[in-house]
Amino acid sequence: MNINALMDMTYGMYVVTSRDEDKKVGCFVNTVTQITAENPIILVSINKKSYTNEIIKKNKKFNVSILSEKTDPKIIGTFGFTSSRDNDKFVDVNYKIISEIPVIDENICGYLVCELLQVIDAETHDIFIARVMDAEKESNNEPMTYSYYHREIKGRAPKEAPTYVEEKEEEVKVEEKSQYKCKICGYVHDENKSSTKFDELPDDWKCPICGRPKSDFEKI
Amino acid sequence: MNINALMDMTYGMYVVTSRDEDKKVGCFVNTVTQITAENPIILVSINKKSYTNEIIKKNKKFNVSILSEKTDPKIIGTFGFTSSRDNDKFVDVNYKIISEIPVIDENICGYLVCELLQVIDAETHDIFIARVMDAEKESNNEPMTYSYYHREIKGRAPKEAPTYVEEKEEEVKVEEKSQYKCKICGYVHDENKSSTKFDELPDDWKCPICGRPKSDFEKI
Repeated sequence: MNINALMDMTYGMYVVTSRDEDKKVGCFVNTVTQITAENPIILVSINKKSYTNEIIKKNKKFNVSILSEKTDPKIIGTFGFTSSRDNDKFVDVNYKIISEIPVIDENICGYLVCELLQVIDAETHDIFIARVMDAEKESNNEPMTYSYYHREIKGRAPKEAPTYVEEKEEEVKVEEKSQYKCKICGYVHDENKSSTKFDELPDDWKCPICGRPKSDFEKI
Repeated sequence: MNINALMDMTYGMYVVTSRDEDKKVGCFVNTVTQITAENPIILVSINKKSYTNEIIKKNKKFNVSILSEKTDPKIIGTFGFTSSRDNDKFVDVNYKIISEIPVIDENICGYLVCELLQVIDAETHDIFIARVMDAEKESNNEPMTYSYYHREIKGRAPKEAPTYVEEKEEEVKVEEKSQYKCKICGYVHDENKSSTKFDELPDDWKCPICGRPKSDFEKI
């Protein structure tokens, strides 16, 4: 078995949000899939460890924000690499409330308002099958795909994502320049591609994906 | 509700195949999704009217061929717009047998060998949840995405696909040139983009997607 064959499957980039009384929750996912065309049904797979998983089971309603290539990649860091259990993920994020649940308001393509029909146990993950109750387009931006995120933003899947694969470090070294990788989200600051050496980045510089400080980076 | 918002969801292009004794069956799908990372589980949604759906329930095994941008679009026509009930879809297609079931052998990215775990009823469609038993890469070609197919090959989803949306005809007319649309698969021969007028195409010209003759085209 060559597990890399699964990496040729194509995905979009989404934030699934819900609400537990006054607490807004959400997580990044790449496995939102339309199942039926009439009275559309969609599904999404979410790790059982995710706090958003727990809240969707309780609330039975969630929204899906469809990220575009113009959505700030910090959104992926905030919703993919931190937990709603400990943080208010929405504190630095523009959002609006649709049917009582937040929707990301940062250059998304559009959103879906969903009502839970069924939860299917799939070992480490749950599959949430839901009816689309409402859907709106917010822009004509190109949808962000996982391959765009991986190729252009140098991001990778969170460890809890269905598509997570531990990647081998790339051994590209040119002119003594180095690559520094964020231990939290995998973002690579590549001195071959940046005009600024890692050591010359300001002390308060933060990972553009997950917002962690320079001390969370390691040379690769 | 703006149903077009669902069209910003991102999909790959796949052919799902199975076997009923000596009969090889298969259909085009765009909803193959990885669900878990460990001991990977995937799912695929297939219309209940599809003969392949019936055979997967019986055989409990299927293969997934991941189409690439270099895969001949005729494959999509053959597997998306005809039925295995009436045709041998494999007659003009290169394939090989992996674990007793065919895999498309036409510049695919790779394939998955799957064993059915569970079938979930979703109104017009069934969701097949399956374990990936084997997976191989066949090329490093770029995976074909639905948006690439729609944009570059001018194709659209088969009527039975979960993502099917009836599209409004485009009203683009420049210099008296016309567009002719295949009534079967929706492929558009656009005289603005082609060097050959529709009337000047040879009589034996066939739709590059589904192989139907010129008589199945209408001016739009």
